[in-house]
Amino acid sequence: MKRREFFKSASVTAVGAAAATAGLATPAIAQGNATWRMVTTWPKNFPGLGVGAQRLADRITAATGGRLTIQVFAAGEMVPGLQALDAVIDGSAEMSHGAAYYWQNKSQGLSFFTGVPYGMTSRELTGWVRYLGGQEIWDEIYDQFGLQGFLSGDTGTQAGGWFKNELTGVADVQGLRFRTPGLGGQVWAKLGASVTNLAAGEIFAALQSGTLDAAEFVGPYNDLALGFYQIAKNYYFPSFIEPGLATELVVDKAKFTALPADVQAIVRDVCQAEYDAVAADFAANDPRALQALVSEHDVQIRQFPEEILEAGAVAAKELLTEIRESGDPLTKKTAESFVAGLKLVRQKTDGTDMLFLRAREQYFTLD
Amino acid sequence: MKRREFFKSASVTAVGAAAATAGLATPAIAQGNATWRMVTTWPKNFPGLGVGAQRLADRITAATGGRLTIQVFAAGEMVPGLQALDAVIDGSAEMSHGAAYYWQNKSQGLSFFTGVPYGMTSRELTGWVRYLGGQEIWDEIYDQFGLQGFLSGDTGTQAGGWFKNELTGVADVQGLRFRTPGLGGQVWAKLGASVTNLAAGEIFAALQSGTLDAAEFVGPYNDLALGFYQIAKNYYFPSFIEPGLATELVVDKAKFTALPADVQAIVRDVCQAEYDAVAADFAANDPRALQALVSEHDVQIRQFPEEILEAGAVAAKELLTEIRESGDPLTKKTAESFVAGLKLVRQKTDGTDMLFLRAREQYFTLD
Repeated sequence: MKRREFFKSASVTAVGAAAATAGLATPAIAQGNATWRMVTTWPKNFPGLGVGAQRLADRITAATGGRLTIQVFAAGEMVPGLQALDAVIDGSAEMSHGAAYYWQNKSQGLSFFTGVPYGMTSRELTGWVRYLGGQEIWDEIYDQFGLQGFLSGDTGTQAGGWFKNELTGVADVQGLRFRTPGLGGQVWAKLGASVTNLAAGEIFAALQSGTLDAAEFVGPYNDLALGFYQIAKNYYFPSFIEPGLATELVVDKAKFTALPADVQAIVRDVCQAEYDAVAADFAANDPRALQALVSEHDVQIRQFPEEILEAGAVAAKELLTEIRESGDPLTKKTAESFVAGLKLVRQKTDGTDMLFLRAREQYFTLD
Repeated sequence: MKRREFFKSASVTAVGAAAATAGLATPAIAQGNATWRMVTTWPKNFPGLGVGAQRLADRITAATGGRLTIQVFAAGEMVPGLQALDAVIDGSAEMSHGAAYYWQNKSQGLSFFTGVPYGMTSRELTGWVRYLGGQEIWDEIYDQFGLQGFLSGDTGTQAGGWFKNELTGVADVQGLRFRTPGLGGQVWAKLGASVTNLAAGEIFAALQSGTLDAAEFVGPYNDLALGFYQIAKNYYFPSFIEPGLATELVVDKAKFTALPADVQAIVRDVCQAEYDAVAADFAANDPRALQALVSEHDVQIRQFPEEILEAGAVAAKELLTEIRESGDPLTKKTAESFVAGLKLVRQKTDGTDMLFLRAREQYFTLD
């Protein structure tokens, strides 16, 4: 790495004028720099998420003036995507970027820090994690593995999925071969679907060969690139199983706490900045992609029948009850905190945000 | 300021183990530190917003390891709140924390970076500012004054206001003496209200003395502290004039660009992190405050009659048209970009987010 030049100046004790602050010391970058490896669960340049992981890395590098340089490995470049967390645990990387629910086999409670069926929106999640005890419980979970997690992005509410045939009610879900992972997959299984999980790169071929009748992935911004519209023309909204999908940055806790306090602060600050940046990216680019899907690829935008939304809610509640009753103590604790948090934060969402959105939709059209 | 100790280590070239990263260089803090003054438009410890300004300052100080230390002045401590921007322009402070619409007398387009009637939610605003050209136009506006602005927080959708009497329709608004500032005040004036703007500290007395019939301020978290519930018991939702209120950090551009690149990056990153932090604070604490207002202070939670919501939308559209037609060129450009952005981003809000929220409200209750 190239040694950076830095200013030397006489004393700057007064409140700085432009000339004075030009001399504000840049940290010496002699010995003592470190390069950390970030393994991710995302394909290279994956819209919103992979791009976000790279941008997060670059922002840490920039804000630390290169004292902590982050080198990003897309899924498969160092380890397969779903081994990213293990790579941090075994020390072959210092940080991973992914989604906590990928690791629910290590602790089911981790799902709550990504998003759960009929659960929290991105804004509600950050309220719970930062102000209502979520982060503390998350720390307790990851502490068992010598890790520390931070929210690092959110897709916002996702799309419900691509279906070859139109859905008229719950009867159409029986035996439906549907790609949808995690807790959401468990909800669809309760509705009668034959649920499978395939990696992103395998979905298209499975739809084409007839192995799948339907697939749910992220939303327009990501789905457009994967070409599902070529096979399944019915694009259903909304995802009631992923009202938000938060990404995480996970660090090796011992290495992290050994960093100077200012570098630790930068990592935390950049993660929180990226929580906003990724959500903003999806807010702007999901609708653009959806326009392209409709106008260029003849996609049919549809809403799930009320019967499916209702059955989905019943199934989601059943699943939540199962977790609250049968999970390990830490998972139970996570679920209880999440439920208490959701009950509180949704009061603002339902009693303020939604009333505004309804009024705007009804009365405020723009030419 | 106390000189910080820092590590000296031999070379750390490999990917760091905990022991190695402990030696990662902390920047030398000898000469070259600067202290910047941040003037704010908020009362000291003002929930959400004043607290956020202080936290933002502390985070910059921490992440720069004290190289850039921010000293915060609440409204009135150095200059009155509404002179904060002028204090940066005249050089008596380096940064200000407030809301862009306070300065609409300098450029009406600035209102769009805070929130406009029937306009963008906090998530939509960040989509427009960061991905759809908003920041670039904002830069153009502030450039005229040698300033640079960054989003630094958001309250989320606000409350509609405190009314002594119940509202049954637009007829009840005629002559209503209502405290509500900015573009929102112009909308209420179009509905027939007699609109005034009073500083936060003057509202309570004006309600008590009968000078005001109603007042709109922020939302439960802030309003609870100001005690309006003692005089006006009808608390209306939602604010259709403030679907979000973004705060800004404004810096002296010449001084800012003279900072080392890593310090500039930290200021930007912390502002964006705070955009999330403030919104999370309101998401968690608005409903808590609302519960207290209802259970401890007998406040009546009410929704605006549809007639008022509709007339408000007509007035908001009229106002927007006036701005688009009669503003200065830069204000027109801002309004056009905002409208194009809103048309795009609301497609996701209306077609995905709202569908989810409706389904959750209808089918997913929690015990």
